[in-house]
Amino acid sequence: MFAEIITIGDEILIGQIVDTNSAFIAKQLNNIGVSVYQITSVQDDREHILQSIKEAEGRADIIIITGGLGPTKDDVTKHTLCDYFNDKLVEDPAVLAHIEALFKKYINAPISNLNRSQAMVLSKATVLNNQYGTAPGMWIEKGNKTIISLPGVPLEMEGLITNEVMPRIQAKYKRPYILHKTMITYGLGESSLAERIEDWEKALPRHIRLAYLPNLGKVRLRLSGKGEDMNILEDEIEAQIQSLKPLIEDIYYGLEEDSALEILTGKLLSERGQTVSTAESCTGGKIAETFTSVSGSSAYFTGSVVSYATSAKIEVLNIDKLLIDKHSVVSAEVATAMALNAQKLFNTSYAIATTGNAGPAKGDSDAAIGTVFIALATPFDVKVQEFNFGNHREKVINKAVNKAFELLWKEILKK
Amino acid sequence: MFAEIITIGDEILIGQIVDTNSAFIAKQLNNIGVSVYQITSVQDDREHILQSIKEAEGRADIIIITGGLGPTKDDVTKHTLCDYFNDKLVEDPAVLAHIEALFKKYINAPISNLNRSQAMVLSKATVLNNQYGTAPGMWIEKGNKTIISLPGVPLEMEGLITNEVMPRIQAKYKRPYILHKTMITYGLGESSLAERIEDWEKALPRHIRLAYLPNLGKVRLRLSGKGEDMNILEDEIEAQIQSLKPLIEDIYYGLEEDSALEILTGKLLSERGQTVSTAESCTGGKIAETFTSVSGSSAYFTGSVVSYATSAKIEVLNIDKLLIDKHSVVSAEVATAMALNAQKLFNTSYAIATTGNAGPAKGDSDAAIGTVFIALATPFDVKVQEFNFGNHREKVINKAVNKAFELLWKEILKK
Repeated sequence: MFAEIITIGDEILIGQIVDTNSAFIAKQLNNIGVSVYQITSVQDDREHILQSIKEAEGRADIIIITGGLGPTKDDVTKHTLCDYFNDKLVEDPAVLAHIEALFKKYINAPISNLNRSQAMVLSKATVLNNQYGTAPGMWIEKGNKTIISLPGVPLEMEGLITNEVMPRIQAKYKRPYILHKTMITYGLGESSLAERIEDWEKALPRHIRLAYLPNLGKVRLRLSGKGEDMNILEDEIEAQIQSLKPLIEDIYYGLEEDSALEILTGKLLSERGQTVSTAESCTGGKIAETFTSVSGSSAYFTGSVVSYATSAKIEVLNIDKLLIDKHSVVSAEVATAMALNAQKLFNTSYAIATTGNAGPAKGDSDAAIGTVFIALATPFDVKVQEFNFGNHREKVINKAVNKAFELLWKEILKK
Repeated sequence: MFAEIITIGDEILIGQIVDTNSAFIAKQLNNIGVSVYQITSVQDDREHILQSIKEAEGRADIIIITGGLGPTKDDVTKHTLCDYFNDKLVEDPAVLAHIEALFKKYINAPISNLNRSQAMVLSKATVLNNQYGTAPGMWIEKGNKTIISLPGVPLEMEGLITNEVMPRIQAKYKRPYILHKTMITYGLGESSLAERIEDWEKALPRHIRLAYLPNLGKVRLRLSGKGEDMNILEDEIEAQIQSLKPLIEDIYYGLEEDSALEILTGKLLSERGQTVSTAESCTGGKIAETFTSVSGSSAYFTGSVVSYATSAKIEVLNIDKLLIDKHSVVSAEVATAMALNAQKLFNTSYAIATTGNAGPAKGDSDAAIGTVFIALATPFDVKVQEFNFGNHREKVINKAVNKAFELLWKEILKK
């Protein structure tokens, strides 16, 4: 059984926004055993929308359309759906009451005719209640096929998918189970990896597919299976993972689902009752922000000094001005002192420090753009390494953050 | 003249990755006057790819295909293109030399047969040199139509689009100019805004289109025009913006291109020789990170104390423990003290402080999940406000960061 997703909006086709709705919907559909055959992004244009729905209906049972439901002239989805289904718009009293309530609560004003038009829905549609906005979703059946129209605002679309669409699909359609597991490897190229595991890959059963996903020195291996029994499918994929593991022992890192380093690191620190703090210059607080993006991080992440200006390194982090004058702010010596002082200031087991030049202009140092020193204070010692992460500001910062987590992770694992 | 984009990869259709390639390509194409008619994401499947290219060729002059060029079994694009063009693969000596050089440099090993297969290209294709990877791009002409095949790895694709594809399209096709300008408004709903500017919208010339882009209390108005003369087009759109401005004076915020608050705030601070620091609890360093994401921010952003743990508030930020005991860490009083102490510690004109509970569990405070206090110390006084940003951890943090910038921005503007 297949679904298709059609996202409507000129803003997608001119590259003004990245279409994140499709990935969200595709993932939810996969979770309940519905495969997505194709994703199509089309313009706010009647003919184009009609054509794309017609084509999708030839290939799929479920078509989810997002966008074009607003009250303004550029929103044409509802009228186009009327043409497609030879239907007319009628006012839905429950939706109207919902819109009036929203306006009363947030704007304290009566609604206008344009707002009122949001309550018009296809007469054939089952109305899907949009708790986060004024445009309702619509569920329209045509034999065994279903066309679903949702607003394009991500928050509203997500609420409707989760609360209204998924339960209805589960009730209407019999579906197989779909399961994906992604194994992460580092340090071997895609081709060499493929050659190494060739025999294992050839022996995979037909209903389990392997995909290689290479990116920046990391190759992810995704195993995808489809089956009637979830337990059997899980066991089958687990067995394949277990038989692959010994072949890639030296480069295997973990499963994607639980492999974000800030989560893994946090778990280990929690288990050991240890803590960490940071002193950040070129990473500007991003290591701290990454730690605190994990709920429960207050158990092991204590805090950070973002000492961006040289004066902050001296005044807040107590780095000796003479040390800076002698070695410059971007140096192994200053990174080391930053890590040690953060460890002391926050009284933590570990402390990570970064100082570098992310570019594009040189700062309070002569260091080449891309140069970053990362120091790690541990309960036993302090280490420092120098890196060059290239000349793209955002990438330099992100690579430094990733490297800092990698260094910390490897250090904790050793103990 | 139209282009279409086809992105190939099961990882897109199962929602494992968000397709960011399409938005990048669409934006580049728009910049040189090429409109994108449709974006289609299809599976790693021969028949599906053939069908989608055939359909796209019926609608567009230029078709850009990404993905499926790797050396492994799941990569089927090259063989499928051979079928489509009735062509065969031949080894390209320059690509082979490039692959060998890459292997020598990074892995110091000879290449295998699988690696070598990356040098096989369609005999009819013009080879596009991929400086960041082993899979070359291909440019294949068919009358006045062009089909371009690129690797799906974003870094490699971006390099090829910028250095190889765009110059070739500019040389081959005569194109109009396309211009988009997006005006940002806050505080009026889409419907009310549309009613207010109805007469202005009706009077727009046919070649300038208006789109409403609503999201979370913000409505963006995008004006899009197409024309033969860039200067005339720019003047026309500028004239429309000027005639719209008086109608939306109270809610107009700026043009999207230069409106990121961290940039606007930074510019103002720089001009005035003022500085800012932060003391962050629930935002975990994200305000600092946002400031420092702007190059040149060291001129006005001094640093931050991320005082995540209560102990860090006391030890590093010198907040009185009695104050915390009396009011709790999530309180107006503690936020105020944090802002004042950061201002003093970093010796800055302004200081922003956040303390709150981002959830999902309650921390060192009884405050409801979503409660955030934001305090702003200015050269003259200190203000504090309480917010509730809902119960989704990531959204609470992001809303708090946005609100902090909004408060700072409004405060600086007043002076």
